[in-house]
Amino acid sequence: MFFKKAPFAEQALTKALKNIFGYTPGNIALYQLAFRHRSAASVVSNGVKNSNERLEYLGDAVLGSIVAEYLFKKYPFRDEGQLTEMRSRIVSRSNLNALSRKLGLDKLIQTSRETNIPATSILGDAFEALIGAIYLDKGYDFTKKLLINKVIPIHLDIDSLVNTEMNFKSKVIEWGQRVKKTAEFVLSDELENGKQNRKLYVVHLLLDGELAGKGHDYSIKKAEQKAAEQAWISLSEKNLPE
Amino acid sequence: MFFKKAPFAEQALTKALKNIFGYTPGNIALYQLAFRHRSAASVVSNGVKNSNERLEYLGDAVLGSIVAEYLFKKYPFRDEGQLTEMRSRIVSRSNLNALSRKLGLDKLIQTSRETNIPATSILGDAFEALIGAIYLDKGYDFTKKLLINKVIPIHLDIDSLVNTEMNFKSKVIEWGQRVKKTAEFVLSDELENGKQNRKLYVVHLLLDGELAGKGHDYSIKKAEQKAAEQAWISLSEKNLPE
Repeated sequence: MFFKKAPFAEQALTKALKNIFGYTPGNIALYQLAFRHRSAASVVSNGVKNSNERLEYLGDAVLGSIVAEYLFKKYPFRDEGQLTEMRSRIVSRSNLNALSRKLGLDKLIQTSRETNIPATSILGDAFEALIGAIYLDKGYDFTKKLLINKVIPIHLDIDSLVNTEMNFKSKVIEWGQRVKKTAEFVLSDELENGKQNRKLYVVHLLLDGELAGKGHDYSIKKAEQKAAEQAWISLSEKNLPE
Repeated sequence: MFFKKAPFAEQALTKALKNIFGYTPGNIALYQLAFRHRSAASVVSNGVKNSNERLEYLGDAVLGSIVAEYLFKKYPFRDEGQLTEMRSRIVSRSNLNALSRKLGLDKLIQTSRETNIPATSILGDAFEALIGAIYLDKGYDFTKKLLINKVIPIHLDIDSLVNTEMNFKSKVIEWGQRVKKTAEFVLSDELENGKQNRKLYVVHLLLDGELAGKGHDYSIKKAEQKAAEQAWISLSEKNLPE
């Protein structure tokens, strides 16, 4: 994947954002910052770099709040556990990476030539940083309306995100049966969290007794899915599964 | 700790909130919901209870966003890792429990007689639910101003929260030396997260080879602190440490 090596000029960036979101940015410097990956940043003062990471921290929180309310109102009969799970799918790195690409943000991101960070996570990080920039530029209600009117309905299929589940566990087990490998999911640890009644479960997936993937989640079933997903991805990289 | 068994009447609750925060609530039913612990709730429709848990989910997200921005602006030269760490201290269950009690929210919470949930977490949960209610009643900017003007400066010593560290690790080690027990911190697992460059470390604290506490965090040092804290709390409950 190729990103730009130089920042967009103010006018070009203003025009690009207007095309994507239909509004004219106020403080364009915020948006230039949002699209500057740390590999293209320099230290500006007191040890702080002019990369998009602080904006990403802010945007992550603002996005989390807006999506929390969106789901709270859209699903009045789902409980807090279901809402939390839905939200974590929507703001998952893989979903935000895809969203960022759909919006065409990949063409606006500035990195150094030397960067060897997986290109995909740069996309989702820049999307969050952009949310931080929009929030600082235009406020909460503006950011919320933009997401709810211009991003979510056009670019995210919430119902299928919420209802479909990639079943990596059965994928791995079926593959194991084909190639005569035993797949064993082991609950390797249970960790207490700050919140009441919530334990973090750690699951290891062993293929023929060898560690193939790890997952952690507040439900054992989901931790197994994550362990299977990790194993599946690493098997796919070795081109093993058919 | 004693909580109320019946909900506050509308007028009394309106007055109490006015006394605590200085504003008159609009939709008082939201606030009654915010103070209703699940032990005092009943199923109202489609399987959803009229407890404060959905509001807690929403308030947690809104609070996270407001605190994220507050720290972003207060500490312009701290990086995103430091800001994230500060935020997690401010919104930690123990800090929100204490804050909730300082504000006098304990007198407004409604539970059943039979509840045996640790009373403390009920406090922090109700504080978050209250933030959810204020947000739905009055909007984001109002909630933000209320927190930044009326709650944080009066009830939270941000600088000491941010700068002090409870060193449970040395407490446990010193106690171990006194009572001739070896304390050993073992990195028991490393888990990959969705986000780039972040590993979740799991540390077990063994006292004379026996598991005494577990902690998990994105830094080994902090995971050790959390394992030590958990061990310290459970030792304290047995009245062992002096």
